[in-house]
Amino acid sequence: MDLKQVAKDTTKFLSSYLTYQAVRIVISQLSETNPPLAIWLSNFSATGKIQDGEVYIQELIEVDQPLAFRIMIVRAHLADEVTEFLPEMTIAAIAQANMQHRVHYLERVTQFNLSPESSDPDSI
Amino acid sequence: MDLKQVAKDTTKFLSSYLTYQAVRIVISQLSETNPPLAIWLSNFSATGKIQDGEVYIQELIEVDQPLAFRIMIVRAHLADEVTEFLPEMTIAAIAQANMQHRVHYLERVTQFNLSPESSDPDSI
Repeated sequence: MDLKQVAKDTTKFLSSYLTYQAVRIVISQLSETNPPLAIWLSNFSATGKIQDGEVYIQELIEVDQPLAFRIMIVRAHLADEVTEFLPEMTIAAIAQANMQHRVHYLERVTQFNLSPESSDPDSI
Repeated sequence: MDLKQVAKDTTKFLSSYLTYQAVRIVISQLSETNPPLAIWLSNFSATGKIQDGEVYIQELIEVDQPLAFRIMIVRAHLADEVTEFLPEMTIAAIAQANMQHRVHYLERVTQFNLSPESSDPDSI
């Protein structure tokens, strides 16, 4: 299990995801201040190229540099403000989801083993 | 900018991504100990349903509960071991990428402004 590589891959993935969130925020801001540009950016971002945040930013710089720089500032802000909470939140979310899956499974198996002779819950 | 919502969405996303990484690790382990099962899990995981980690685990429990529980243990382990490094790594990665985009843009603009009268670097 190459944890170092997983950490590197996850960082790249997270960086692209925060770029996507930054784009959403900028589109939302533009929809109030400059609706035509919001629509343009929304169309530009809908082609799937946002899968790789760096390719996306690079291509946006070519056509609208101020907008690209604005998204870069927002994603850096998101990284500063949001990532510190992620370890605790993710560990808790996975622990909780794992527990729910186990409980759900146990309930199902218990139900299965009890039936058909005691399918009526009142008879248990 | 609803940072709380961004943090929640990112946590869900990260949790699904670590599930995907856990599946990759388990497939890699199985390819040495139980190749047919590795192929089966690889096919099962290739249908796009892994986009949502919880739906994926739920469906896998229905058909192979021990395998699903194994992936759940691995993803909890990844969350414990990997997430603590993510804030620092992601902030650094975005800061570095942003700087590279700015430098690249400035180089391009400078190049553009200098040419055509001084396209030969030696003449600068």
